Amino acid sequence: MDVLNVKAASRTYPIYVGEGIRRDINYLLPGSYTSVLIITDEAVSGHYLEDVKEGLDQSRVFTHVIPVGEQAKSVDIFYQLHTKAITCGLDRQSLIIALGGGVVGDAAGFAAATFMRGIDFIQMPTTILAHDSSVGGKVAINHEHGKNLIGNFYPPNAVIYDIQTLHTLNKQEIRSGYAELVKEALLSDADFFHTLMNRNLASLTNNELTEDIMRGIRIKASIVETDEYESGVRTYLNLGHTLGHALEALLGYGKWTHGELVAIGLLFAIRVSEGAYDTNLPLEKLYTWLKTNDYPLELPVIDAETIITKMKLDKKANNASIRMVLLKEVGHPCTDNIDDADLRVHLTSFLDELAKQAKNGG
Amino acid sequence: MDVLNVKAASRTYPIYVGEGIRRDINYLLPGSYTSVLIITDEAVSGHYLEDVKEGLDQSRVFTHVIPVGEQAKSVDIFYQLHTKAITCGLDRQSLIIALGGGVVGDAAGFAAATFMRGIDFIQMPTTILAHDSSVGGKVAINHEHGKNLIGNFYPPNAVIYDIQTLHTLNKQEIRSGYAELVKEALLSDADFFHTLMNRNLASLTNNELTEDIMRGIRIKASIVETDEYESGVRTYLNLGHTLGHALEALLGYGKWTHGELVAIGLLFAIRVSEGAYDTNLPLEKLYTWLKTNDYPLELPVIDAETIITKMKLDKKANNASIRMVLLKEVGHPCTDNIDDADLRVHLTSFLDELAKQAKNGG
Repeated sequence: MDVLNVKAASRTYPIYVGEGIRRDINYLLPGSYTSVLIITDEAVSGHYLEDVKEGLDQSRVFTHVIPVGEQAKSVDIFYQLHTKAITCGLDRQSLIIALGGGVVGDAAGFAAATFMRGIDFIQMPTTILAHDSSVGGKVAINHEHGKNLIGNFYPPNAVIYDIQTLHTLNKQEIRSGYAELVKEALLSDADFFHTLMNRNLASLTNNELTEDIMRGIRIKASIVETDEYESGVRTYLNLGHTLGHALEALLGYGKWTHGELVAIGLLFAIRVSEGAYDTNLPLEKLYTWLKTNDYPLELPVIDAETIITKMKLDKKANNASIRMVLLKEVGHPCTDNIDDADLRVHLTSFLDELAKQAKNGG
Repeated sequence: MDVLNVKAASRTYPIYVGEGIRRDINYLLPGSYTSVLIITDEAVSGHYLEDVKEGLDQSRVFTHVIPVGEQAKSVDIFYQLHTKAITCGLDRQSLIIALGGGVVGDAAGFAAATFMRGIDFIQMPTTILAHDSSVGGKVAINHEHGKNLIGNFYPPNAVIYDIQTLHTLNKQEIRSGYAELVKEALLSDADFFHTLMNRNLASLTNNELTEDIMRGIRIKASIVETDEYESGVRTYLNLGHTLGHALEALLGYGKWTHGELVAIGLLFAIRVSEGAYDTNLPLEKLYTWLKTNDYPLELPVIDAETIITKMKLDKKANNASIRMVLLKEVGHPCTDNIDDADLRVHLTSFLDELAKQAKNGG
């Protein structure tokens, strides 16, 4: 089992990564608790919920299963989680465990952050994508006008990552998770980027998965340690997300996965970067790798103006113009304000090219 | 104008108390902001909203008026506040101002704490009661199963207290505010307690009001500085609230004011203290003062068991038994677990006596 400690402003918390550790959870608990509420979703509950329950040497263990997907990050389900916590008699010395992907972590984490003004919680990610969201302390639900608009900075008390649970992921989920790993590599590690460009997502080994996830977590953790509240370098983690989030809102959460749309956002960010800084970035290499690994790169027809309006509603947008994360080279991110006219030109030609390449079969 | 600085874990913030300072707000802002959203309620908006708007030298000022009373601390209104903030284009460099009593401060503060994971906010209390809630960083909304169950610790960036705004308070609101002042005096200042017992709430002078509020704020601030997250001495601030909150939930928010029910809770806490510690507390003195100042001390018939069940849902209750704040003497609070049987005996005879005294005209 690997352990990495993350220093947040309010607390330092451990990240445990290992095979089968969901069964050892009792030894990894950061405290003793009057009650435990495990929150998971309909996809994960059948696979791993019993293992975790059995692993807990605790008399008061409750479970709550939420629907799969972004729909679970609604204010209604947020309220239901509170109802559950109250009716189960959870108090301030209780623990919430988020067992699942990013959606479960975000929803359960925000419930923990706000239940009686904050109780302990543990992230148990069961997807590759969740290596990203489980580290850094962002918890949130969605508003009908945008993703993650209602939330807190609230670090977990521990992250327990059992890589055995990744065996049940489907191909789409693997693609989604690897898009965030590619993002992290682009931000800070050209060597890692080249490693990833040689991965075949259809035949990943356990060792490859463990290595990639650990590298991704280290990058993420080092960035959030420097800037927990996203006033500086943490913004870089939004590489690919300005367009990614807008597309997610427009195409409806759930049809494409988060990471698949971030992948398109990464291509766009690289393209804008090349235009802005006269730099040579691995646009073709990434495009080819995405194509080879069956990332869906064909979007329905959406007007550039509609996308820009949506981008401005994103919480990372300053009031006046869109601020994007760009790359001067692999490992050297920066941020820049892009005015609406430039953005329109870039976005229109980017969407045209995607459509053309899709038509030509890549 | 008086200034007091409060040191919270995450930030130090100033409390300004003075006459007419709602008009000077622009000079008291703790930063510069892209937009300002003033949240107030239907009772306060007609009196002071325009003054605050005019006091702001700011091009993007928005206002939102919520209903009066605890009903405004619903999850629906919480969501509406987010909708307003989003559609007005607030971003992370924006400010929310809570102009009103404790309800406005709690609801607007929780919206600020969770909008894009937290933006700046200022408390502008317009009631005596709000001297308490505006200091200390507790923000929350209600769940149908209990008050303030959904919330955060999120200190304001400043508190701007214009005591001129207290002129529009009705008698019930004055009683409500003074009950919390009495609580603070009981916790830490026998001299202040005796001063309060000589106040006639029907004829308070401006000087008396200013003096009492400043003394209350100092007591509150010194306690929350010691224990922001309520793991220790801050619990003492719940003196009178175990019963007070339960009664509030059972009698319906809004019929009695918060402070009026806390006053009944204070009598009960003193009574239990006398039984537990063989001490002589000013029970008669407080009862007489409450009666003289028209506090409603006659409750509808409620079963002690129903009240105990409600107390256990309160977020301050540990799982097993009720933990109450008690007094060894005025200025010396402590906490103690009261088992259900004892509580039942105390509560039954307390309710009987209240009813008897009400029948006998006090």
